Amino acid sequence: MSTFEHIGVIVKNGDPRIHDTVSALLLDLRNRAVTVHLDQSLGTVGFADAQLLPRNALGEQCDLVIVVGGDGTLLDAARSLAHFGIPLLGVNVGRLGFLVDIYPEDMPAQLDAVFSGQYQIEYRNMLHGRISRGDVEFAAGVALNDVVIHSDEAIRMIEFDTRIDGQLVNHQRADGIIVSTPTGSTAYALSGGGPILQPGIEAVSLVPICPHTLSSRPIVVNADSEITLLLSAQSRTNARVAFDGHLNIKIQADDVVTISPYAHRMQLIHPKNHDYYAILRKKLRWSEQP
Amino acid sequence: MSTFEHIGVIVKNGDPRIHDTVSALLLDLRNRAVTVHLDQSLGTVGFADAQLLPRNALGEQCDLVIVVGGDGTLLDAARSLAHFGIPLLGVNVGRLGFLVDIYPEDMPAQLDAVFSGQYQIEYRNMLHGRISRGDVEFAAGVALNDVVIHSDEAIRMIEFDTRIDGQLVNHQRADGIIVSTPTGSTAYALSGGGPILQPGIEAVSLVPICPHTLSSRPIVVNADSEITLLLSAQSRTNARVAFDGHLNIKIQADDVVTISPYAHRMQLIHPKNHDYYAILRKKLRWSEQP
Amino acid sequence: MSTFEHIGVIVKNGDPRIHDTVSALLLDLRNRAVTVHLDQSLGTVGFADAQLLPRNALGEQCDLVIVVGGDGTLLDAARSLAHFGIPLLGVNVGRLGFLVDIYPEDMPAQLDAVFSGQYQIEYRNMLHGRISRGDVEFAAGVALNDVVIHSDEAIRMIEFDTRIDGQLVNHQRADGIIVSTPTGSTAYALSGGGPILQPGIEAVSLVPICPHTLSSRPIVVNADSEITLLLSAQSRTNARVAFDGHLNIKIQADDVVTISPYAHRMQLIHPKNHDYYAILRKKLRWSEQP
Amino acid sequence: MSTFEHIGVIVKNGDPRIHDTVSALLLDLRNRAVTVHLDQSLGTVGFADAQLLPRNALGEQCDLVIVVGGDGTLLDAARSLAHFGIPLLGVNVGRLGFLVDIYPEDMPAQLDAVFSGQYQIEYRNMLHGRISRGDVEFAAGVALNDVVIHSDEAIRMIEFDTRIDGQLVNHQRADGIIVSTPTGSTAYALSGGGPILQPGIEAVSLVPICPHTLSSRPIVVNADSEITLLLSAQSRTNARVAFDGHLNIKIQADDVVTISPYAHRMQLIHPKNHDYYAILRKKLRWSEQP
Repeated sequence: MSTFEHIGVIVKNGDPRIHDTVSALLLDLRNRAVTVHLDQSLGTVGFADAQLLPRNALGEQCDLVIVVGGDGTLLDAARSLAHFGIPLLGVNVGRLGFLVDIYPEDMPAQLDAVFSGQYQIEYRNMLHGRISRGDVEFAAGVALNDVVIHSDEAIRMIEFDTRIDGQLVNHQRADGIIVSTPTGSTAYALSGGGPILQPGIEAVSLVPICPHTLSSRPIVVNADSEITLLLSAQSRTNARVAFDGHLNIKIQADDVVTISPYAHRMQLIHPKNHDYYAILRKKLRWSEQP
Repeated sequence: MSTFEHIGVIVKNGDPRIHDTVSALLLDLRNRAVTVHLDQSLGTVGFADAQLLPRNALGEQCDLVIVVGGDGTLLDAARSLAHFGIPLLGVNVGRLGFLVDIYPEDMPAQLDAVFSGQYQIEYRNMLHGRISRGDVEFAAGVALNDVVIHSDEAIRMIEFDTRIDGQLVNHQRADGIIVSTPTGSTAYALSGGGPILQPGIEAVSLVPICPHTLSSRPIVVNADSEITLLLSAQSRTNARVAFDGHLNIKIQADDVVTISPYAHRMQLIHPKNHDYYAILRKKLRWSEQP
Repeated sequence: MSTFEHIGVIVKNGDPRIHDTVSALLLDLRNRAVTVHLDQSLGTVGFADAQLLPRNALGEQCDLVIVVGGDGTLLDAARSLAHFGIPLLGVNVGRLGFLVDIYPEDMPAQLDAVFSGQYQIEYRNMLHGRISRGDVEFAAGVALNDVVIHSDEAIRMIEFDTRIDGQLVNHQRADGIIVSTPTGSTAYALSGGGPILQPGIEAVSLVPICPHTLSSRPIVVNADSEITLLLSAQSRTNARVAFDGHLNIKIQADDVVTISPYAHRMQLIHPKNHDYYAILRKKLRWSEQP
Repeated sequence: MSTFEHIGVIVKNGDPRIHDTVSALLLDLRNRAVTVHLDQSLGTVGFADAQLLPRNALGEQCDLVIVVGGDGTLLDAARSLAHFGIPLLGVNVGRLGFLVDIYPEDMPAQLDAVFSGQYQIEYRNMLHGRISRGDVEFAAGVALNDVVIHSDEAIRMIEFDTRIDGQLVNHQRADGIIVSTPTGSTAYALSGGGPILQPGIEAVSLVPICPHTLSSRPIVVNADSEITLLLSAQSRTNARVAFDGHLNIKIQADDVVTISPYAHRMQLIHPKNHDYYAILRKKLRWSEQP
């Protein structure tokens, strides 16, 4: 008897390779004692025999959501569903992902395992960013990977102050800065030269993007830190704030971005034999020998 | 007896701190047996007693151009005047510069030295970039620091192939790439993690910007290499090509940027006691001890 | 009324500049209602009027230990005294230290503050390393900064496997590896290119030393991880294991170094206005602008 | 008709896998109109029918030397033979090499090509290092990869001044420094974080090893620079100077290491289709995508 009865399915938008995998998944689920709800965006794809629901209703009614796509699709699901406390399961279509780790060919066996309770559940910290101008908080967002402040003009540096729990860390000139969770440490923060953070660690890294100084270095701080980034009055360009690469909210001098832990964590279901370091070695060819 | 008789003066635009230095310079030059021509952009500043000339006429008529401003002003002068073969002399207003190395307070003594032939002349390589779509070369530019290809959308990677003299170097996903002269190696290429190149070296560095792989590394190639960068068809975003941070020409998939040595070099006049490494240590606090 | 009654004093060995500071400290302490015990190594220095004690007795009898010297002296005190649970207070003689943050000229005022209860106490994690050959654990050590495995021959790489809580992380060829606490993140791990870890964070970083691959990157793991490093049979040289740069125990192929959290933490007393980031900026010229 | 008539053969010492390849090579050479001379170290291996010669005699009598082994064997041959001006050809046994690029299975065809003049010849710069105490030059060496100064005690920094053509570059505290040719830029200099230098470039890189500062960066200078490294009087440990990882000459405070271009270059024969970047991508997995 399964613990999961109401299953949501979210599918990567507009990827034709995905159709067969979704068909197989829906067929498989039909044979289990579960109700299936499709994310509304799926409507166009033409799987007629399951109930279409808007994302929020999916969150309210499901006790498991299966995401078919890549890490980007799962990031999107996490941002919209984390506050419902539903676990996510990722089926990978395309390149190996860090978050979506079930392969289509292994799907039947892995679903058997999951529906019989053979799985691990992992909790991933998320970030909450709020943006203020003067006394007014005019925008906010949630991220599983990272909150990034980036110059609004390519090849123009911004200037900003970083504070941790109210204490000045430094004043920097750079293309921007990445505030990254452990999950995000293998994404854009990696490109910026940041360290890899073990998934479960209660830490956040601050990784400057192309800092115009020799003496910059990533710093890793407590996950519960309140990080404030102030776009300096000397900054010659505006900036944008992105949450997992989305939203891209425009900010100007003296605007403040405050980043703190999000109240909810993403729950990620892995097969029992999940091996983070093996994925790291395979996907990033980490420390591979010449 | 001076070797320089026709002196051009180019001044940083719109910087109020500069007025006194320019006045002092013009007064000083009046006492020397030289003709002074002002860059036309100076007209608004109100130095009435010298002939205003457009940049090109300045290039044709002068045998020395004095630049008052920062490194950016001198970069601009170099791009527009290098093909006239005129030496440039930089008077620094503001922060210490790598290229403009005479301080206002030292100006009289340094000008005495220069006009009596006590100076060193340094030749700096420049880059020539041409951009093609299919068979049509639709844009081109010149750079003293760097030619940069950068994603047109912040936090979206581009994909591109790099070739040196026709040979494939690699295929990369990154925010962009910096092709830098030795002069540019202490500018944006430094922010990207590139090595410092000694000013006179016949070399160009290729520095990826936020490469999404662990195994990237800057490469230094011969100054006479022909470097071609092809924006890949898989690239999900367009890109821009900047020359010393200017022009910002938009390119799309399959466009090719070809970078080769510029036919002219910038001639930079330094005081006799010019010490590149001292500037490096002072400006970048290079290798300074904790 | 002071909370500290039995004060131990440990002094950097053989540093002549230190004598005046120690004299002033002892004079100051004589005017407070405390008993002073000198670390035995001080005997030679000639401060006759306080009781000399071996380090262990100092640990048993004191409720505060004042360390006069540099970070190295305090590291040494921490390794020998942490298990007694006594707080340490550092008086700096020489260059600015991260751990010893009271200056001789501020000593009287700072001691007034500390003895009247005006101080912060900080807890710093330490590491415990055990070294085994076959079934026999033949050596062990404690570190406040780092446990380092290093090739026993300069410019000869070692090969080793890293495991975290039993899971293989990777197999590397490098000059060695640094396992660093947050305290050590500004010491040798910084030289190896590791990130800065905020002092209080429950994390440990693994920083390879000169890895012979492009695809290496520091990783940050939970402070309670059990890290095992196995010197590989393919390794062509022996290695040494150092604890805060000391002991230097020789190991050979198939030896295993197991690093886990030390059962005790170092207690460090800071003045109320202690500012970690200010020290970072000052000492490392962190993110300082050109 | 072949241009090469006297062929020397040098073989990696003590590698049993190599015997078959050497036998096949000698058999192949017997069928060509050439005289074969074996490096004396081969004597023990038991190839009786060719003349054994000491290394120097090999250099004097041969017009081509074939090296069977890995990059290390070829480095050794280069150091001892470069001044004779003989081209070297590398047959690879073991892992892919940068310098030895003929595989045993391709040997017959590649030898046909080489003996009929179908090859490219590449000239690689080498370094000459001289070590002085006071006025006495007490040691010297030659390197194809790098001259490395390294602390004589693991995990103890040295302090040293670097000068280029007499000008002070900086004063550093680090584990050491690597002075690398383009050939060496994919060897130890790579481990130290240095840039890749295109093989033919007239450049040398200076790469600090574990510098204890945030503001260090590799610098690339002209190949004809005279680089002097002075072990500082403040240095708390002695150091060693290695040439391609060999010799390891002990130096003490105030000793000076002077590195300048070696008067001879190594001549390396490549098959016509030699592709440096392909080897780079394959061997270092350079810029490979996740």
